[in-house]
Amino acid sequence: MALQTAIKTYHHRVDEQLKNSLVHNSIEPLLQDAMRYALFNGGKRVRPLLVYLVNQLLNGDITHADSSACAIECVHSYSLVHDDLPAMDDDELRRGKPTCHIAFDEATAILAGDALQCFAFELLSSTNNPANTSTKLQMISVLARASGDKGMVAGQAFDLSHVDKPLALEQLKQMHAHKTGALINAAIELGYLSAECQNLETKTALLAYGEAIGLAFQVKDDILDIEGDTQTLGKPQGSDLEQNKPTYPALLGMEGAKAKLDSLHRAALDAMQPFGEQGKLLRELADYIVNRSH
Amino acid sequence: MALQTAIKTYHHRVDEQLKNSLVHNSIEPLLQDAMRYALFNGGKRVRPLLVYLVNQLLNGDITHADSSACAIECVHSYSLVHDDLPAMDDDELRRGKPTCHIAFDEATAILAGDALQCFAFELLSSTNNPANTSTKLQMISVLARASGDKGMVAGQAFDLSHVDKPLALEQLKQMHAHKTGALINAAIELGYLSAECQNLETKTALLAYGEAIGLAFQVKDDILDIEGDTQTLGKPQGSDLEQNKPTYPALLGMEGAKAKLDSLHRAALDAMQPFGEQGKLLRELADYIVNRSH
Repeated sequence: MALQTAIKTYHHRVDEQLKNSLVHNSIEPLLQDAMRYALFNGGKRVRPLLVYLVNQLLNGDITHADSSACAIECVHSYSLVHDDLPAMDDDELRRGKPTCHIAFDEATAILAGDALQCFAFELLSSTNNPANTSTKLQMISVLARASGDKGMVAGQAFDLSHVDKPLALEQLKQMHAHKTGALINAAIELGYLSAECQNLETKTALLAYGEAIGLAFQVKDDILDIEGDTQTLGKPQGSDLEQNKPTYPALLGMEGAKAKLDSLHRAALDAMQPFGEQGKLLRELADYIVNRSH
Repeated sequence: MALQTAIKTYHHRVDEQLKNSLVHNSIEPLLQDAMRYALFNGGKRVRPLLVYLVNQLLNGDITHADSSACAIECVHSYSLVHDDLPAMDDDELRRGKPTCHIAFDEATAILAGDALQCFAFELLSSTNNPANTSTKLQMISVLARASGDKGMVAGQAFDLSHVDKPLALEQLKQMHAHKTGALINAAIELGYLSAECQNLETKTALLAYGEAIGLAFQVKDDILDIEGDTQTLGKPQGSDLEQNKPTYPALLGMEGAKAKLDSLHRAALDAMQPFGEQGKLLRELADYIVNRSH
């Protein structure tokens, strides 16, 4: 399968799974409408893609990856809804569409986010998740540890508490490792668990890959903010610079940032080396992240 | 043990457990400070109490109830933090202390709530939870289903979308069943699970008890809002009436509301009848809920 085909296939698959899971069965239909709005907002489904790619790399039963793919997308979606709130980033548009609190209202957006996070754990613990009991429990533990006060939420809080404050390189790395890296690596670990794989070397290699692409994604974003053009980016070029946000080019210079991106790219490819031909799609995904123009 | 002793004992127990679980290990200490502030806000720990009382009623190992007691209090606490936000109930005080978004700020309160919900599932899925694997998974499922778009969050959303709209009696009951009842019954089911009990009749009786005391609590609250005095209540007497909130006295008249309270009280005591002397504390808790003056 080519990477672009895989992206489309798994995007479609997780969308179907999410549609089938989130049935209309609440006393407050508006709440579920807002959850659906947040879930189907044109997201690229990168985290579900990683769950599926790792599951398939390890010859897993793909139906065992569905709950994890849905759950991690629920957590990602809820985090965007809450990040967009007026008290947080105060964004009215996301991917050209009104954010959840604009399309509905602030209270509904807060509650839809809360319910989406909860739904992630409902999906993983459900009898509809075909993984075995002990695997399901590990999936829940992985997602919970990646999402909360030691993971994603901590990264977001750290980011907010350092607005307009200079960050050292290590702090910038730590912020990204929490804010986005934790969930990227959780996606990979969920894929690993969904394949019922118990090989620690395999897990270590995959997580090294995840760490590299997670950070590469951020470094590339920072570079694009300066070198990309506004129309391709979908946001004003130079907006990080203008908002005085800490970035890799700001700390390392443009050449330094590009060298960093190269070394992360190589680290990702190296980590996939033991998987040979089987690792092709994940290697191509690393190439794609590094070479994209938006 | 007398009920008041049990209340104190288990309050102390869950507080100690929460303190030991929520260690300082985040890159953003402020986030964990806000989580701690929300958790230790003078709450009565009713839900943990129910977990422990049911665990002990069924001769469970009390250490198997700790994670559930902590987890359900995390969910309850997060819901209060988010309910108090300006976009929701906009409350600046809770139990005489500044609410979380006043003591910290709105963004931190949103994130602390998010992290607390996540922490609940982290606690239940942790290897520190001594329950067996399949029981842990059931605990997570019970808590998730009670907390989200089919439970507590749905109740809150329903409440918000019906401000200033008349509610029929059945709607009012459904709203309370979701908003507070779902978590009360989850506490009872968590206690049941923590005792590794597998007797469905026992479970049914306990859930009938939970449904009765959950609703009795609300009916009594509505009555106290009219008949209680402001100082004992800790909030202005008559505030529901003034805000045009739907209440049992408004729909049934004061006599009707009191008759309803009586019948719920009897239902709770009846449900506990099969447990004989062992059920004393839960029966006394029902008496306490119905007879309290604030």
